[in-house]
Amino acid sequence: MKSLPNVAIIGATGAVGQVLLQLLETRSFPLDSLKLIASPKSDGKTMIFRGQTLRLEPLSESAFDGIDLCFFAAGKEISKRFAPIAVAKGAVVIDKSSAFRMHPEVPLVIPEINAEALKNHQGIIANPNCTATIMLMAIAPLHRKHRIERIIVATYQAASGAGAEAIEELREEVRAQVEGKSYSRKIFSQQYAFNVFTHNSPLFDNGYVDEEMKLLEETRKILGDPEIRLSATCVRVPTIRSHAEALNIEFQEPVEVEEAYAILRSSPGIIQHENREKGLFASPIDAEGRNEVLFGRLRKDLSHPNALEMWVVGDQLLKGASLNAVQIAESLLTL
Amino acid sequence: MKSLPNVAIIGATGAVGQVLLQLLETRSFPLDSLKLIASPKSDGKTMIFRGQTLRLEPLSESAFDGIDLCFFAAGKEISKRFAPIAVAKGAVVIDKSSAFRMHPEVPLVIPEINAEALKNHQGIIANPNCTATIMLMAIAPLHRKHRIERIIVATYQAASGAGAEAIEELREEVRAQVEGKSYSRKIFSQQYAFNVFTHNSPLFDNGYVDEEMKLLEETRKILGDPEIRLSATCVRVPTIRSHAEALNIEFQEPVEVEEAYAILRSSPGIIQHENREKGLFASPIDAEGRNEVLFGRLRKDLSHPNALEMWVVGDQLLKGASLNAVQIAESLLTL
Repeated sequence: MKSLPNVAIIGATGAVGQVLLQLLETRSFPLDSLKLIASPKSDGKTMIFRGQTLRLEPLSESAFDGIDLCFFAAGKEISKRFAPIAVAKGAVVIDKSSAFRMHPEVPLVIPEINAEALKNHQGIIANPNCTATIMLMAIAPLHRKHRIERIIVATYQAASGAGAEAIEELREEVRAQVEGKSYSRKIFSQQYAFNVFTHNSPLFDNGYVDEEMKLLEETRKILGDPEIRLSATCVRVPTIRSHAEALNIEFQEPVEVEEAYAILRSSPGIIQHENREKGLFASPIDAEGRNEVLFGRLRKDLSHPNALEMWVVGDQLLKGASLNAVQIAESLLTL
Repeated sequence: MKSLPNVAIIGATGAVGQVLLQLLETRSFPLDSLKLIASPKSDGKTMIFRGQTLRLEPLSESAFDGIDLCFFAAGKEISKRFAPIAVAKGAVVIDKSSAFRMHPEVPLVIPEINAEALKNHQGIIANPNCTATIMLMAIAPLHRKHRIERIIVATYQAASGAGAEAIEELREEVRAQVEGKSYSRKIFSQQYAFNVFTHNSPLFDNGYVDEEMKLLEETRKILGDPEIRLSATCVRVPTIRSHAEALNIEFQEPVEVEEAYAILRSSPGIIQHENREKGLFASPIDAEGRNEVLFGRLRKDLSHPNALEMWVVGDQLLKGASLNAVQIAESLLTL
């Protein structure tokens, strides 16, 4: 890729797209031009980038003419249809959706963990599932030092993972509840205000939802370890944009808590966040707007000699999505 | 105990006390008289029971004169100080607090599971921790059929577990957030609106909070199995009065999902609640106001041949607290 690429964001008005735009600006991402593509309902709207007013453009095959680098953040179906077109026209695609993640020729990349996978890309690079990314930022450094055999994870996932309209729905449903009014949901089929529910991705015959299976499959691919075992329970909680996860991590051999802390403290992109004296640990609000994944609550599993418990929290729109995508792009520029 | 006892509720105005009062009425609990005891700040206030206006009385040693049965729901310190006094004056105490739960001479009872433990009581009977009760309602029937060796649990706990003022704090903080106003918390030290945080009970040196250790200790006592292993992560989520729990249950041998469903479907006090076609599972809102613990999402743990995953939800103020206490009292009357 040339060093000053022509860049496009597909899905610029979405939750991920908006944060992508901010990050390209705040991180001074080197680019020659930026094209913002959105659905027809954004026709005629504009967004500001580096002081310039950019008009949103509709998605079409010709929209990719002259584009070197595209961020796809408009859902799986758009990616499936248009990412190959963008690649055929010479662009590199960084895809937020799950469309290509498990394709054997598509690198699935968290730069801090497996940047080397970028070298063999064929035009499309997949950005992992947000919940997987946040977990793996803390899992991978431990796994490198002491092989992890099994992970049991329960998640506390924010509205943002379901998009900007889901955040709006949570806020509006909560407002209606507080004001004693009724509210008609558009996104979720269960009450979200003052409630939690099983992640709203498709349910498979094995009893797991898609989000839970992604955690297993993407973990294996990113760690390059088809043997690692994982069982997940993914739950939507009424928070705005940070996912939290309770991780039970079983190693091949016993690992001391202090050693695990030391490994993670020296790992990039994650920060210990806890105040044991006050009994305060990372919460979604603490992680909001932060690039780093917050970790803490490391403790010996009371039920298994080789296992540790841990708590991680990360901004779903930053490391969980847009930040990781921009980091992939930054890594590509230095390849 | 005589068949028409004189009953007292200590802590009648609290979240648990209010629901206790409702249950004694709706379940037509046989009693001769009811005395409502509350803190001095409720002086002069009244509550209605079976159409009668009862004046709240202050707590004192003489308040227990003539009382046959007391429900203590005013916190651990009040129980520690006054439960022995009530017993010395001839009353049987059913204590919601953790004050006496692990005392070897105090039965810790969930009537559906270990009613037989009531027979040896010495005056005080402990009501288990709400999170433990909700979990054990689904765990005990399985354990009886196929020995459970290990449980890993992550919880999604409601405001009600921290009392009526915590529910109020959650509602008011959410209202302030929605209206863009500031709010000064009194109960919790972390933002609760649109947030989740580690359970606010004291932190021990082993990295677990008190609530998590209770889950282990009370599980062992109630199941009468000092060998069962358990590791917990307890998390407060912004819901009002139902706790949800993600359970990973490892048996001594493989157990089929359909057999586990069949065992639980024929067990008292729990109900399967799920619609797999629509991908809908029990949520805290579904459990609110229901006596039964809702269970579902049984599935083979993808990471262990002997383990199942399960999801349970129960009303913290009903089976988690007041209902179980009233059921203990009902069991005592038929002893």
